[in-house]
Amino acid sequence: MKALRYENQKLSVSDVPEPHVDGEAVVRVTLSGICNTDLEIARGYAGFEGTIGHEFVGVIERVSEARPSGRAGSPSEPSLTVGLLIPGQRVVGEINAGCGRCDLCRAGDSRHCATRTVLGIVGRDGAHAEFLKLPAVNLLPVPDEISDERAVFTEPLAAACGILERAKITGETSVAIIGDGKLGLLCAQVLATTGAPVVLVGKHEGKLQIAARRGIETMTVAEAQLRTKKFDVAVEASGSRTGFTLALDLLRPRGALVLKSTFHGATEMDAARIVVDEISVVGSRCGRFAPALELLKTGAVDVESLISEELRLTAGLRAMERATEAGVLKVLLRP
Amino acid sequence: MKALRYENQKLSVSDVPEPHVDGEAVVRVTLSGICNTDLEIARGYAGFEGTIGHEFVGVIERVSEARPSGRAGSPSEPSLTVGLLIPGQRVVGEINAGCGRCDLCRAGDSRHCATRTVLGIVGRDGAHAEFLKLPAVNLLPVPDEISDERAVFTEPLAAACGILERAKITGETSVAIIGDGKLGLLCAQVLATTGAPVVLVGKHEGKLQIAARRGIETMTVAEAQLRTKKFDVAVEASGSRTGFTLALDLLRPRGALVLKSTFHGATEMDAARIVVDEISVVGSRCGRFAPALELLKTGAVDVESLISEELRLTAGLRAMERATEAGVLKVLLRP
Repeated sequence: MKALRYENQKLSVSDVPEPHVDGEAVVRVTLSGICNTDLEIARGYAGFEGTIGHEFVGVIERVSEARPSGRAGSPSEPSLTVGLLIPGQRVVGEINAGCGRCDLCRAGDSRHCATRTVLGIVGRDGAHAEFLKLPAVNLLPVPDEISDERAVFTEPLAAACGILERAKITGETSVAIIGDGKLGLLCAQVLATTGAPVVLVGKHEGKLQIAARRGIETMTVAEAQLRTKKFDVAVEASGSRTGFTLALDLLRPRGALVLKSTFHGATEMDAARIVVDEISVVGSRCGRFAPALELLKTGAVDVESLISEELRLTAGLRAMERATEAGVLKVLLRP
Repeated sequence: MKALRYENQKLSVSDVPEPHVDGEAVVRVTLSGICNTDLEIARGYAGFEGTIGHEFVGVIERVSEARPSGRAGSPSEPSLTVGLLIPGQRVVGEINAGCGRCDLCRAGDSRHCATRTVLGIVGRDGAHAEFLKLPAVNLLPVPDEISDERAVFTEPLAAACGILERAKITGETSVAIIGDGKLGLLCAQVLATTGAPVVLVGKHEGKLQIAARRGIETMTVAEAQLRTKKFDVAVEASGSRTGFTLALDLLRPRGALVLKSTFHGATEMDAARIVVDEISVVGSRCGRFAPALELLKTGAVDVESLISEELRLTAGLRAMERATEAGVLKVLLRP
């Protein structure tokens, strides 16, 4: 099968064997989405080699008869889910595959399992391919109301929902999101569903308008700089050092800075400012898929406007280049 | 009067006028303590000029008859406190003096008032002097059970107690404190009072023994490095970059790194690690004095062992030098 791979410091669309059923489920990928993490991996920053990609929607191709040993035994991951995983079922998949045996996995949350693999990121071939495999317990059926073009956003939307696990946000919480890229636009929309007054700060008029159409207040960086120390929560979704500094500047004392983008390498921070104003810098990575699917099902979030382009998997190299270009949001790949 | 001052990039013991009563209380200082923040100020890092020092115990010298306008009106700072402030009363004082009018001050907590002054740190002459002044609402009577030599630790002990306002610590929380200096030793003892299993990590056998005598587990940096990702909370109290890195290494996923020391300048942090392991980096500065006085009153914390030396205020320059020397903990000044 074809797969978009990063190997020997080089990105290529290669022919590789299809994955075997070996206690996991094999999914035929319908659509996959290019994430900034993919771009980082292709720059060699993440130390990953193999098939990249972790955002996908697909159809169950094969699933082993036997219940995968030690995986689906947690009370919060009911066997109901596994029961629905018959060939032909449309699915999305949580990307962290845990050991199934540690306390975290047994509690139904393998996102921090110490020996986890992560689809297309850590020790596991990813989604920019004709087929992928994941533990059956990771897969969730996609409701009929959600098109493939929307369902492929489940993973990044879940990541945005993950902020709500890490910071208390209510209708009273003033929130600034820094960065009007894909991630910032999803975070702004998700956090606005709480009723919180959300402001999206960015540099690109066209991107800001996507949020503005959803009733979210938007502003330029210069405008934001007039509102320093006014926000309870600031979400850094730009991936830039200046974004981090701006987020810190916008926070009131005892505010929370949610770090959402994985900067590569070390970042300078003004530790004295964090101590004096008693700021919390809160890392946030993956979220659960169920709330994201609910948002997609009810249409509470506009993801279609984030699609810039769809290319064939065989044009994967061009797609990766397009994804780095200014003004481009989500680039999708169709095998 | 004599005062230890930092002016024109120079530290000196100078003669300055005694403070006037102008709606605030004048305190005759009995003892003051040298804090690492004083050393930072004397290196020019904090941008402060004037009399340094913010840890003290003293005796009310004069207090204005009129209730200070707009200050003591908060429900949580009862006039009872003000009532006890008659000349001769032994007192300690919270160091942040707020505007008295903003929402924070009116709620009884001026620690984050945007226009606050801070004793010996921001816009207000400090405690290494024969007299100081503070708003009456900042002063707390010292119970008879607490000697001057113990009471002078109220401010740094309150700062250690402040951690409990910023991180949830119970009998189940595994805590590592990085740094066996004055601050680390106070933090370790305060957090141990919660019943939490606390480990103090340091490089100085003599200092570690102060904690060990209180039943606190201690370890070297090398020993700590064998327990990476094992702690729920790590408190950075060393003020060094390597301390910050070690604290991060010791935390389990979703752990909290409490930043307690004010680093000067920018500090590098591994933002990717914070995001991937979803760490919270939590700044902590000043605490309330009441819990600290309670700990001193009940003898729950050993502070006497932290006193290295007591010098006269006139020997302030030598005292500041001593405070920088290896193995030296708290240096006290007596006017």
